[in-house]
Amino acid sequence: MNTKVIQVEIITIGDEILIGQIVDTNSAWMAGVLNHAGFELAQITSVHDRKDHILESLELALNRADIVLFTGGIGPTNDDITKQTLCEYFETQLVFNESVLKNIETLFSTRPYFIINDLTRAQAMVPENCTVIQNIVGTAPITWFEKNGKIIVSMPGVPYEMKHAMTTEIISRLHDYFRTPSILHKTVQVYGFGESALAIKIADWENQLPEHIHLAYLPNSGIVKLRLSGISDNLLELEFVMNQQIDLLSAILGDAIIAFEDKPLEELIGYLLSVKGYSISTAESCTGGNIAHLLTSVAGASNYFKGSVVAYANDVKTNLLAVSFDDIQKFGAVSQTVVEQMANGVRKLLKTDIAVATSGIAGPTGGTSEKPVGLVWISVCSTQRSITREFRFGALRDQNINRATQAALVMLKELL
Amino acid sequence: MNTKVIQVEIITIGDEILIGQIVDTNSAWMAGVLNHAGFELAQITSVHDRKDHILESLELALNRADIVLFTGGIGPTNDDITKQTLCEYFETQLVFNESVLKNIETLFSTRPYFIINDLTRAQAMVPENCTVIQNIVGTAPITWFEKNGKIIVSMPGVPYEMKHAMTTEIISRLHDYFRTPSILHKTVQVYGFGESALAIKIADWENQLPEHIHLAYLPNSGIVKLRLSGISDNLLELEFVMNQQIDLLSAILGDAIIAFEDKPLEELIGYLLSVKGYSISTAESCTGGNIAHLLTSVAGASNYFKGSVVAYANDVKTNLLAVSFDDIQKFGAVSQTVVEQMANGVRKLLKTDIAVATSGIAGPTGGTSEKPVGLVWISVCSTQRSITREFRFGALRDQNINRATQAALVMLKELL
Repeated sequence: MNTKVIQVEIITIGDEILIGQIVDTNSAWMAGVLNHAGFELAQITSVHDRKDHILESLELALNRADIVLFTGGIGPTNDDITKQTLCEYFETQLVFNESVLKNIETLFSTRPYFIINDLTRAQAMVPENCTVIQNIVGTAPITWFEKNGKIIVSMPGVPYEMKHAMTTEIISRLHDYFRTPSILHKTVQVYGFGESALAIKIADWENQLPEHIHLAYLPNSGIVKLRLSGISDNLLELEFVMNQQIDLLSAILGDAIIAFEDKPLEELIGYLLSVKGYSISTAESCTGGNIAHLLTSVAGASNYFKGSVVAYANDVKTNLLAVSFDDIQKFGAVSQTVVEQMANGVRKLLKTDIAVATSGIAGPTGGTSEKPVGLVWISVCSTQRSITREFRFGALRDQNINRATQAALVMLKELL
Repeated sequence: MNTKVIQVEIITIGDEILIGQIVDTNSAWMAGVLNHAGFELAQITSVHDRKDHILESLELALNRADIVLFTGGIGPTNDDITKQTLCEYFETQLVFNESVLKNIETLFSTRPYFIINDLTRAQAMVPENCTVIQNIVGTAPITWFEKNGKIIVSMPGVPYEMKHAMTTEIISRLHDYFRTPSILHKTVQVYGFGESALAIKIADWENQLPEHIHLAYLPNSGIVKLRLSGISDNLLELEFVMNQQIDLLSAILGDAIIAFEDKPLEELIGYLLSVKGYSISTAESCTGGNIAHLLTSVAGASNYFKGSVVAYANDVKTNLLAVSFDDIQKFGAVSQTVVEQMANGVRKLLKTDIAVATSGIAGPTGGTSEKPVGLVWISVCSTQRSITREFRFGALRDQNINRATQAALVMLKELL
């Protein structure tokens, strides 16, 4: 068997992306799902709500790819023209679809403050020669077209509507239509190396990788993800070879590898806490609640996460976390002793097994020559042991918050 | 004067976007900056690190646009091939550039754990016929090419390196090269309407908008942003007409307009708190620290934000926030009385003027028929008054956390 790699392109439609008002998170999510399903995403194109540009993009995409997935531009308001544009391309007209209206009625029956008006009713007008797929979580239906053995799908741009359509309908229908080979990705997360230092360290290993396995470096917030990718008709063989290569890599990098899977650290930590039956709390100054936010973004977090004290002001540190007022005077709030007292303080206050604390200067102001913006102290502790480290990140507030958060998660994983 | 609208396209290069491992936040940021500078972003294209596809994208983009901005694919590792590909396109070769190496040496001199190796040194090889722009915050230089009156720039994909290049060098150089008309956007943020209900409400107003002013609806987490856009050589006249239209809109929507600018609510709230000299704290259950995280993402937050208690576990609510144990037993943790006690509790505990509290069922589990997943109570209070409301969001954890956070910010703004 020599299955052809099925190429997909995504076209996102909407002025909002092109004037920078929203970040296109849909495409990344779709890319992940498509890859997992054995399709290769060849290109993402974002264009305005303009007919000629949409048509040109579709034409070009169909020259290259087997499947074109549109998102966006099918809302009820006047600025959305995707449906009309697809009608023109497929030389058809809009017709009323009873079941789309029924779906909207069902949907609105549970939302007392939504009423069906002419604009929502217009959502039930669909191109005549397409397959209509109901969008049971929104008012705009999904439309599915076939042309010369290729598939064109138009979906809503609202993220949860698009995700619902992709997971419940689109992927399985694409699998009915196309036969896909296996695309396998494995990711190893490495901490403590810059990108090029890591590349030098693993150069010999990289050079001996089999031809059909591709390596990519993905640095982010202090962590470099190494991603191995391969396409094969024989998934078992591919997986075996990849695992062999990861064993070799592991022998070179040792503890610098902090995870063998492409999951966010907060999810890995949640899993470890659950398995070990430990509870956790956080005491956050410069990270401002971001560690708590990430830990609680994981479903089931209430099984191990008890709470946090975000202690921005010094009197919150002393009153709630029992940090010594004298030590703050003597060493400053951004210091080893204060961050250790914060970690222990919150662990005792919230009666948890594990705690993590951060104190730093996020910037852009508040730095001194001795304690510059970007200086962050982080401490993690259990009843038995603690680890405390000093970091110097940089000048940018967002980046300092994110890097400190990731470093705290890395230290938590180390402690566990 | 009838200045031509200068069209820009962005091409992002990197497998990581197309397999969904990272979200392309660069393009949205660049889009915002380009628009503000009077350029029109016509398309964003994301392609793999593959020579033929990069070349095709460049060719097509140059057919449509005046400026093509590349990001990504210029790191030190083997998977990055943009530089070599541009050499081929511009029929030139790589030559050693002394000042790039000097820049890398300067950069590394402040980072003791970074050493210059062969891969970093290779970053100093640049295409012979381009203008090299130093990247003083990273190792990969920016390369600037001119061809037939069009500009092609290749920048790093690392967000802060790209942002630094754009703000310090690229925009001003593009302004030296091209004359741009004024593109003006004005945004009004509306709360409490679904997208189509809002469209009906303002239909008459929308229909009388002048031809050269375009309206877009951008719904997100319960807020609909209405964005007016116009292009003109006469910025003052355009601004005057837009303001007139916004006054008309304001008369229709009244208090449903929560902001007249396109800034995140946390920034608007931070400004109001600063101006009024109020301090703030948060008590968060279902939002898990996300409100604190957003409030502290704003530079200068330490002037008004004192701290938070993330109270996931009930004993944290009773012990720290003085919530009545009996009331939790009687009404449940997700109830009006408990969330009001949480808000007052944290306000007194952290001695702030204002406080906000959330308690809800984020899901995916933990719901009952009476209290389903998505039910959230939110309370905001000052020493004088309080507002408490019940919300029913939906089934998705992320969305519940985000919508509850935005609703809390809207209520804070109302209180202020």
